Amino acid sequence: MTAVKALVFDTFGTVVDWRSGIARALAPFLVAHGRPDLDPFALADAWRRRYQPAMEECRAGRRPFTRLDVLHRENLETMLADHGVSAAAADLDALNLAWHALDPWPDVILGLHRLRRKFFVAPLSNGNILLLANMAKRAGIPWDAILGAETVQAYKPQPEAYTRTAEILGITPAELCLVAAHNGDLRAARAAGLATAFVFRRAEHGPGQATDMTAEDPWDWVCQDFVDLAKQLDC
Amino acid sequence: MTAVKALVFDTFGTVVDWRSGIARALAPFLVAHGRPDLDPFALADAWRRRYQPAMEECRAGRRPFTRLDVLHRENLETMLADHGVSAAAADLDALNLAWHALDPWPDVILGLHRLRRKFFVAPLSNGNILLLANMAKRAGIPWDAILGAETVQAYKPQPEAYTRTAEILGITPAELCLVAAHNGDLRAARAAGLATAFVFRRAEHGPGQATDMTAEDPWDWVCQDFVDLAKQLDC
Repeated sequence: MTAVKALVFDTFGTVVDWRSGIARALAPFLVAHGRPDLDPFALADAWRRRYQPAMEECRAGRRPFTRLDVLHRENLETMLADHGVSAAAADLDALNLAWHALDPWPDVILGLHRLRRKFFVAPLSNGNILLLANMAKRAGIPWDAILGAETVQAYKPQPEAYTRTAEILGITPAELCLVAAHNGDLRAARAAGLATAFVFRRAEHGPGQATDMTAEDPWDWVCQDFVDLAKQLDC
Repeated sequence: MTAVKALVFDTFGTVVDWRSGIARALAPFLVAHGRPDLDPFALADAWRRRYQPAMEECRAGRRPFTRLDVLHRENLETMLADHGVSAAAADLDALNLAWHALDPWPDVILGLHRLRRKFFVAPLSNGNILLLANMAKRAGIPWDAILGAETVQAYKPQPEAYTRTAEILGITPAELCLVAAHNGDLRAARAAGLATAFVFRRAEHGPGQATDMTAEDPWDWVCQDFVDLAKQLDC
């Protein structure tokens, strides 16, 4: 097997707990807007459900590449309208920044500090550069660079999202490993020639999670968390 | 004046001492290749003299955007041929990485640590992403993100290099300040609407330096080094 030189990480779900973070931001917003009856976790899920369809417009070429902050903002407005909630534009702008302020899972910071001594580490996320950089700065995530969809102008699982990232890093796809909690992301990465590491995030979707509870393919590495990955990679 | 929210930094000359670093890498290379008679500082200057003309091919549209590692590698080969030096491709590849391993000026790390508490800080360099990220990792430069020509697919002083960087950061050009030791870079940044900070780097070109010894225009800030800039910006 080709030696891996760089690790890139899916972010939402793999590095950060987006569901708790978004619900945490929605809760006071709903109270302030007179709707404490609504469940912030259900609304977080509803907001997130619009994520893939919005990117699909860009992937399918029906819309030019549009950074995720813009898609999130549009999705927020539609999602709230569906629930009969209206708010001032400035309040929606502020709420949209909740995606910049998500917390990493407890193993992430230590695991990455160990992994980065041996490997180049960067996000390969559909999040835009500012979102990922603000998230890293707030939480102390020690990335070597901020990469992702905006840098390569392609949304995962488009093959270019993976191959152009390897090109930027001056390595072959086989020298690049995607770390992700999602079998679908890893399948697309493997099809593009990347090495693959699956990490279990059994709480990403809350207590009823039904997806990505197992490693569905023989990934190159399967790990419990980032510290376990560091151990497996002798970091 | 509009409040500045992010600082972006020219890199070669402003953040790092490229001339000493390149000469330091050239010296053992020249000895190993039987040419200890050649002056590594003169060759560093000769290599660097090919930098602007190479980028100009891309800026003028005669060549698609090509990352700096590739231009540096081509320039190295031509520069050495001019001096009658030949070497194996692998040795040239290794020498080309000297641009990834330059040292910051002594005030840089402390100054940036102070500045980044209040501002978003990133390079806005014609260096490519991998070059800048490797440089930062080796030297401990605490960037919030790696930005620059490769991210925006335009070489300074093209206006898009400045304006697209502001767009990525979700701010107006006036909310973005370029920090540079070069009056020409600052002039282009100001023309694109950015705020400007001049920093003296009187040793960039060695003892005989004749350019950029003064702030040639009334820049928004003029500082002796990055720690001085942090003081002036109340960081």
